[in-house]
Amino acid sequence: MAPAAPRSSSPAAADDAPATVVAVDCNGADLGAAEVAAGAALAAEQGVHSLLFGPAEELGARSSRVEVVDAPVSIAKSPDPAGAVRAQPQASIVQAARAVASGRAQALVCAGGTGAALAASLFNVKRAAGIYRPALALPLPVPRHPVTLLDVGANAVVRREHMVQFAFMGAALSRTVLGVAEPRLGLLSNGEEAGRGSPLVLEVHAELSERARAGIEGFQFVGNVEGDDLVAGAADVVVTDGFTGNVALKLMEGVSQTMLSAIREAAGAHLRGKIGGALLRGALGSFRHEIDPERQGGAYLLGLRRLGVVPHGRFTRVGFAQAIVRAERGAREDIVGRTHDALQRAGALREAPVSAPVASLRKAE
Amino acid sequence: MAPAAPRSSSPAAADDAPATVVAVDCNGADLGAAEVAAGAALAAEQGVHSLLFGPAEELGARSSRVEVVDAPVSIAKSPDPAGAVRAQPQASIVQAARAVASGRAQALVCAGGTGAALAASLFNVKRAAGIYRPALALPLPVPRHPVTLLDVGANAVVRREHMVQFAFMGAALSRTVLGVAEPRLGLLSNGEEAGRGSPLVLEVHAELSERARAGIEGFQFVGNVEGDDLVAGAADVVVTDGFTGNVALKLMEGVSQTMLSAIREAAGAHLRGKIGGALLRGALGSFRHEIDPERQGGAYLLGLRRLGVVPHGRFTRVGFAQAIVRAERGAREDIVGRTHDALQRAGALREAPVSAPVASLRKAE
Repeated sequence: MAPAAPRSSSPAAADDAPATVVAVDCNGADLGAAEVAAGAALAAEQGVHSLLFGPAEELGARSSRVEVVDAPVSIAKSPDPAGAVRAQPQASIVQAARAVASGRAQALVCAGGTGAALAASLFNVKRAAGIYRPALALPLPVPRHPVTLLDVGANAVVRREHMVQFAFMGAALSRTVLGVAEPRLGLLSNGEEAGRGSPLVLEVHAELSERARAGIEGFQFVGNVEGDDLVAGAADVVVTDGFTGNVALKLMEGVSQTMLSAIREAAGAHLRGKIGGALLRGALGSFRHEIDPERQGGAYLLGLRRLGVVPHGRFTRVGFAQAIVRAERGAREDIVGRTHDALQRAGALREAPVSAPVASLRKAE
Repeated sequence: MAPAAPRSSSPAAADDAPATVVAVDCNGADLGAAEVAAGAALAAEQGVHSLLFGPAEELGARSSRVEVVDAPVSIAKSPDPAGAVRAQPQASIVQAARAVASGRAQALVCAGGTGAALAASLFNVKRAAGIYRPALALPLPVPRHPVTLLDVGANAVVRREHMVQFAFMGAALSRTVLGVAEPRLGLLSNGEEAGRGSPLVLEVHAELSERARAGIEGFQFVGNVEGDDLVAGAADVVVTDGFTGNVALKLMEGVSQTMLSAIREAAGAHLRGKIGGALLRGALGSFRHEIDPERQGGAYLLGLRRLGVVPHGRFTRVGFAQAIVRAERGAREDIVGRTHDALQRAGALREAPVSAPVASLRKAE
């Protein structure tokens, strides 16, 4: 019998309902909500169940593994995501986040941008117990040396204890979702030596070094890494503050794009009208595939009670499918619970009760 | 009559002595001191006079425009440049810096690395009047959009007033040495909007915006720029703290190298044994020339009483010649005096007397 029973609102679902469902906000994708739905269909072929929120007429028919909720209101392009989340409770991302909060789904995928996903998640899914701040982690498609960088922009200002939690959160992502058994974790700095860095980096380095001496569960601390180490395989996970991480991420994107354009141009001057031009296009195509961000599914929202994944708005169905598959894997392998357990054993959980969602959202903006 | 008179030790030199001489520390270059001397000979062909410090037997004969001082002691590879500068007064970089301090030369070029150059300069050349901190500025060879980034590593921690001075210093470099008439100056941040950034960036943005409203002499403030703007021509000069600047610089270098290797590899798989391989090598060669850092002469030490230039140790004679020519241009066009005048008119000079060199060096480390 096909698993066609109505989704249970309890996390302990009945046997014939899927244990793990991914709530997907389909609004905001450059290619339209239908492309996200096509990604969900690809994910369904891999056995992953999803619950789509978006304009029903664009999402197509439901299937045995894809359920559709008509939610045409989009706040994906709002310049004030937090305000839009408050003002538009019917927006697709808000409904998707509520489905995760209620237990109807176990992970969130949002095609409508990081701001809306972060705001809707903080209001509805909420921070995980003992976590100071959510962080945005991005697996970078570096040829031969994939590396996950966090925080890439959720927090422009952070404290030592936030960065230490980012380390555990990033390592948990690397293990459970990206499949790295014992991630090597580095701290981004302006020098490899332990004494180099901003005061914040020095504090974090001291704490992680001390924890490493006592034995860290779940990752290996490799110390400071520099900008060029980020693409040289020096670490599987690199931790930094959201200001530096955002600058680094956009710089990498910019340098890659600029180089590809310039090489194409230089090659054009050399190869114009020659068979070499076609060969070069083939070679650059191989390279572009290797650095294709769709292969990693997007950015990961960590530190919430459920995993969130934010594919880039320009992705095709392939990237959306990957985001959904990865989100399901993170939920099924309990990234949140594992992170909590590791932080608890390390004594790195926040002691005070988590503040109200509105206050925390303001802080995270 | 050839200008063969002995160099005057007074800045107001006699008519038959060159008005501008560049002191060059030749120790520390990967290709040896002789390669630096060969660079000086190339610079001499462009009319630039230099005074070389290094092992005399490697530097070759003096010429009408190149004088040689035997200074075989090198501290280029010292792990503690400040300590080495104190302990080794005969080291070539220390003698070169003293020649600049005494007025025998008007600018410094150091092939032996930034650490030694910065330490020797702070002890001997000293900070310019009213400057808080020296900064390291690097012209980046971005195809079609050259941009100068500072600080790339002299100061891991800076305050608002330091960054404001960096803006004036970088703009003066862009005008006098790099030939940009009215440089557009951007502030590196994690978002373009004025409200985005670390607390430090917000402070600097507010001050530069206010100054821009009142009219800034010497540059146009274009507001925040993001990581990708750095390579997209959004500004001619980009200001940041030395931590972020160093991470960004090394990341750019790493991404460029990684991409070139990966493209070469991908191309190899496509083009093996074909004529296209040779064509591709030609195309990549054109591109490599375009992003060749030797064309800009190296990194610039700003904020001292004289201009310093630090070519990369792996440069060839072409890069060393460029460093010497650019240093001479900066001295002749009085980059230090122009920076001081602009800062004075802007009321952005440091009020308190400059502290003793030892204290300032410690701060800068």
